[in-house]
Amino acid sequence: MKPFCFAKNQIIDAQSAKVHPMDIGLIRGYGIFDFFRTSNYTPLFLSDYLDRFIRSASKTHLQLNYDKSALSDIIHQLIEKNDLKNGGIRMLLTGGVSENHFSPGAGDLFIFCEDLIFPSLEKYENGVKLLSAEHVRAIADIKTTNYAFPVWLSADWKAKGAEDVIYHQNGIISESSRSNIFVIKDGAINTPDEHILHGITRMRVLELAPETSIRQVSFEELLKADEAFITSTTKKILPITSIDNQKIGSGLVGPITKQLMTDFEAMEKQIVFK
Amino acid sequence: MKPFCFAKNQIIDAQSAKVHPMDIGLIRGYGIFDFFRTSNYTPLFLSDYLDRFIRSASKTHLQLNYDKSALSDIIHQLIEKNDLKNGGIRMLLTGGVSENHFSPGAGDLFIFCEDLIFPSLEKYENGVKLLSAEHVRAIADIKTTNYAFPVWLSADWKAKGAEDVIYHQNGIISESSRSNIFVIKDGAINTPDEHILHGITRMRVLELAPETSIRQVSFEELLKADEAFITSTTKKILPITSIDNQKIGSGLVGPITKQLMTDFEAMEKQIVFK
Repeated sequence: MKPFCFAKNQIIDAQSAKVHPMDIGLIRGYGIFDFFRTSNYTPLFLSDYLDRFIRSASKTHLQLNYDKSALSDIIHQLIEKNDLKNGGIRMLLTGGVSENHFSPGAGDLFIFCEDLIFPSLEKYENGVKLLSAEHVRAIADIKTTNYAFPVWLSADWKAKGAEDVIYHQNGIISESSRSNIFVIKDGAINTPDEHILHGITRMRVLELAPETSIRQVSFEELLKADEAFITSTTKKILPITSIDNQKIGSGLVGPITKQLMTDFEAMEKQIVFK
Repeated sequence: MKPFCFAKNQIIDAQSAKVHPMDIGLIRGYGIFDFFRTSNYTPLFLSDYLDRFIRSASKTHLQLNYDKSALSDIIHQLIEKNDLKNGGIRMLLTGGVSENHFSPGAGDLFIFCEDLIFPSLEKYENGVKLLSAEHVRAIADIKTTNYAFPVWLSADWKAKGAEDVIYHQNGIISESSRSNIFVIKDGAINTPDEHILHGITRMRVLELAPETSIRQVSFEELLKADEAFITSTTKKILPITSIDNQKIGSGLVGPITKQLMTDFEAMEKQIVFK
């Protein structure tokens, strides 16, 4: 956590930020957030993240007292004060203290700057394993703070050599816990569209590979794919080379995945050093 | 909220309780809680609630630095200091501030005392409506703070004249958002056992009606039932007389439900005024 944050209408020492424990953000897990990163001091794809954050607030009936331009101003101030050359920025809007301890009240807005650690180079070169879990997220397309299930699951990941989880239900896959998934077979790229959070990195990949089929993808298809990868703000494009104990394709990172990783890095450089 | 609470190892002014917003209780919705009530200063079924709270902490890998007897002592102190004759007591254990903002850290324990408002007499006399939702809770048997979905749904309840929701998936019902359900047909009482939180009030009803069948119950069976009711700490036994826009049985509160409501009140009186 970096020294300065935005909390309850001002920039303050981040350690002193606080929320009342009876906030339904805590007692009911009702809150929204968003998370993006800076690359050489540029908040990457900021406009898209702010649009999504504002949409999440609206869909969850939470009042956000700052518009897009005001949020952007605060964020640029925080980047400067925290000297955040390459890091993460987390916006959080809580559900607020509620009379009946259930219905949304007037919540608080917080913005924190963080160090950001990407997966190791080894993971990008060899790919990672996902564990499958039968699950579908409720209101997946709203970026709520509801991650109790994957946090609980994650206790097992290290021992099983897994990076994360892939959710499937009734034979259809949706997403990883904090990433979208792409599945490649016979040169065709496919990605699910239902019961997912519509990721900003996913959106960039769809721009880089506009021929991608956006459709239902079965768990069986994933297991029989030639290549697969997940996308997220903190993982960029991360190759998946096994699911549970089954290899994907050859078990090596495939050529289409590699090309998209290169293209995405180039896109980022172009924005940052334009 | 009553004036005194327990927060981070001491009894303090409840308004001044605080938690850091980066606690994964807030940013990942990872925390556990429990909630019970006092009846004439007696914390009802306290031992069962404490056992469940301790079990929830253990199952979620959260460290609880107080054993059952220490928790009981703190609770009795709070009841006295807050003069909590008839009220609610909420225990909350947060996931803590986490290095990677995901894995559980060292959380904080809070205990708050609250006013408690039961459903109106009219609801007990006429029964209430539940809206159905296709959903099943992940790790339902652990009392996590994960209520984002029903809080989100609840925005519609008032306009639709509904009290709460009934979850069903693949044709099988599980529970309401914060209550267990019982379904009565031809004199036989039935209640689901899978994908539910095992409620303390449910346990008491099973003691009052040991002939209850604990088994899978279909959504179809619920719709065709003679009677139905939900059980929870804050609702006790509350009759359900419609689901969506369909009446249950005659649409009136049935005789078996009424008898159990009476028996439960008698059980409470016997404990409190023994």
